[in-house]
Amino acid sequence: MINDINQLASFVFSKDNIFVLTHASPDGDTLGSGVALCLALRSVGKKANMICGDEIPERYRFATDLVPSEDFSPEFIISVDVADTRLLGKTIETKYGEVVDLSIDHHGTNKRYAKETYVEPGSSSCAEIIFLFLKAAEVAVDSRIADALFLGVSTDTGCFRFSNVTPRTHRIAAELIEAGANAAMINRDMFGTKKLSFLKFQALCLNGMEMFFGGRMSVFTVTRDMLDGCGCSDDDLDPIVSLSREIEGVSLGITIKEKADGTLRISVRTDENIAADKFCALFGGGGHKRAAGCTFETTIDEAKRQLISAAGEFFGE
Amino acid sequence: MINDINQLASFVFSKDNIFVLTHASPDGDTLGSGVALCLALRSVGKKANMICGDEIPERYRFATDLVPSEDFSPEFIISVDVADTRLLGKTIETKYGEVVDLSIDHHGTNKRYAKETYVEPGSSSCAEIIFLFLKAAEVAVDSRIADALFLGVSTDTGCFRFSNVTPRTHRIAAELIEAGANAAMINRDMFGTKKLSFLKFQALCLNGMEMFFGGRMSVFTVTRDMLDGCGCSDDDLDPIVSLSREIEGVSLGITIKEKADGTLRISVRTDENIAADKFCALFGGGGHKRAAGCTFETTIDEAKRQLISAAGEFFGE
Repeated sequence: MINDINQLASFVFSKDNIFVLTHASPDGDTLGSGVALCLALRSVGKKANMICGDEIPERYRFATDLVPSEDFSPEFIISVDVADTRLLGKTIETKYGEVVDLSIDHHGTNKRYAKETYVEPGSSSCAEIIFLFLKAAEVAVDSRIADALFLGVSTDTGCFRFSNVTPRTHRIAAELIEAGANAAMINRDMFGTKKLSFLKFQALCLNGMEMFFGGRMSVFTVTRDMLDGCGCSDDDLDPIVSLSREIEGVSLGITIKEKADGTLRISVRTDENIAADKFCALFGGGGHKRAAGCTFETTIDEAKRQLISAAGEFFGE
Repeated sequence: MINDINQLASFVFSKDNIFVLTHASPDGDTLGSGVALCLALRSVGKKANMICGDEIPERYRFATDLVPSEDFSPEFIISVDVADTRLLGKTIETKYGEVVDLSIDHHGTNKRYAKETYVEPGSSSCAEIIFLFLKAAEVAVDSRIADALFLGVSTDTGCFRFSNVTPRTHRIAAELIEAGANAAMINRDMFGTKKLSFLKFQALCLNGMEMFFGGRMSVFTVTRDMLDGCGCSDDDLDPIVSLSREIEGVSLGITIKEKADGTLRISVRTDENIAADKFCALFGGGGHKRAAGCTFETTIDEAKRQLISAAGEFFGE
C-alpha cells in the first residue's frame, strides 16, 4: 500500500517496459488515464503499452490512437481505474490478473489484488490521480497528455456535474486547459453529440415509458427488437437507465431489459427515499444504495407485476 | 466605460438604494448575478432589490427567494447580463430603460445604453464577473452568494461544457464550492432533472424527426398541438433546437415551430460548415454564425420545401 504520491512517482519512474492495463468495457477515465500514463512514460524514454481487453469505442480513439502498441515484453504491470481483476475481462485477467505490480485507482472498493496499491477514493476520477502523479514526477504535461486526462476527468464527472467533483477537480481542469487540452471539443464529442440510432431508440423508450404511484416510479421496457431495430447495443442503454431516475418526482426508476438469452436484466436507480440494493435483494440481486440490479426469468409482464408489487410496499401503498 | 474591476467595486459600493435589473425570459446567469449582487449589497447594510420583468421560473426560485423585495425608491440602477434595454421586457424597459446607471455584462454586443458600462466579453458568464467584483470589493462570499453565482456560471456554460469555459471559470467554480456552493445539487436540478411533460414532448419531436442530405440536415417540426398536448411551453423548445444540431453528422439543424398566431418560427443551428445567419438571411431573418432564425407565413409543408431547397444550394446539391 503506497500512501504518498511522491513515493508513487519515484516508484513507477524507476521501472521500464511497462504494460498499463485498463478495465474491459472501457470508459473515458480508464482509457484517458492509461493513455496519459503511457505518453508520460514514453516521453522520458521508457517503453509503455496500454492494454485493453475490449475493442476501443470509436469516440475514445482520438486519445488511444496517440499510443500505438509497441513490441516488447512487459517487466512491470500497472492497472488504472481497475477495482477488481475480474473487470479486466477474461483474457486479460487470465494473462495478467495475478501478476499486477501496481494498481492506481479511485474506487474505495479496490480489491488490493496488486503487489502495490495506490487508491484515492476521494478523487473524482483516476485521471485526476494521474495528473497529480505526473506533477509529483515532474513530467511535463503536454497537450496530448492534457487531452487524455481531461477526457478522464470530464467523463467520470458527467462533465463536472456529479457530486464527486471537488474544488481540486475544477483546479485540475483549469491546469489541463492551460496545458492545451481541447476541452470544448472533448466535451462536445462526449456530451454534445447524439447518434441518430440512439435518438431513434430513445424515442421508442420514451413512447413506452410507464409511471406508477403518482409519478414516483418509472418503468422503461427495452426489448431485443427495440435495440436491434435501431442498430443499438447494450451500451446505449446506460442513458435510459440514468434517465429513469432523473424524471422529476421519481424516487424509483426501473429499466427492464430483455437479454439475448431471453432472461430479463432489471436496472434500478433510486433517490434517497429508497435503498436500491435492498429493493433488488428481494429478487436475489444487489448493488449500491442508489444503483442496483437483479435478474428475472419470467415474462416482461410478470416481472413488471412483481416489481410494482414490491415497490408498493416500499412506498407504503 | 469602466475598465477596471477595482474601480467598478468602489463605484458600486459608494451607492445605496439600488435596483438590480435582470433581463426578461430570465436565465440562471442573469438571476444568479442579480441575487448575488443584492445579497452582497445587503450584507454591508445597503438596500437592494432585484427586478425582473417576467415571472421567475420555479427552478430558479431557490436563489431568487433569498432576496425578497423590500420597499424603497431606487437611487441607483444596475443591469446585469442585459446587452440591450429591449431585453428588459416592455414594462421594465419603459420604466427604467433610459435611466440605467451601470450595465455589468459579458456580451460583446452590449449596446452601451447605460451611463456606465463594464463589459467583459471573454467571461463565460455575468456571474463570473460578479464573483471577481465581490472579491475586488472585499465582500465575503457566503454560501448563499456562492449558490447564486454557481447557478449563473454553471447554467451559462452548460455545466462547464461549452467553449466559453476558461481556466478562470474552473478556478472560480472551485472557490465557489469552497465558499459553500451546493454545486452537485444545483447541477442536478439544472441538468439532471427532466420534467415528465418535457419527456413526452421530446418523444413526439423525435418521432417526427426528419433527416435530409445523407444525414447532414435535420428537421424537427413542432405544432401547437404538440406543445399544448404535453403541457409544454415555448421554453421547452430550447433543448430540441439545440438537439437538432447535436445529432452526429448534422451540419444544419432546423426546428419549425408553429406560433400561436399561426406563423412559423424557424430556428437554425449549424456547425462550421454552414453560416446560420446567411442561411436565414435568404428568408429575411438573421442572427449569429452558428445560431439564427427567420419567420415563415406559409404552411409547414411549404416552409419545409423552401428550407430543404435552400439547404440543397448550401450543400452544393
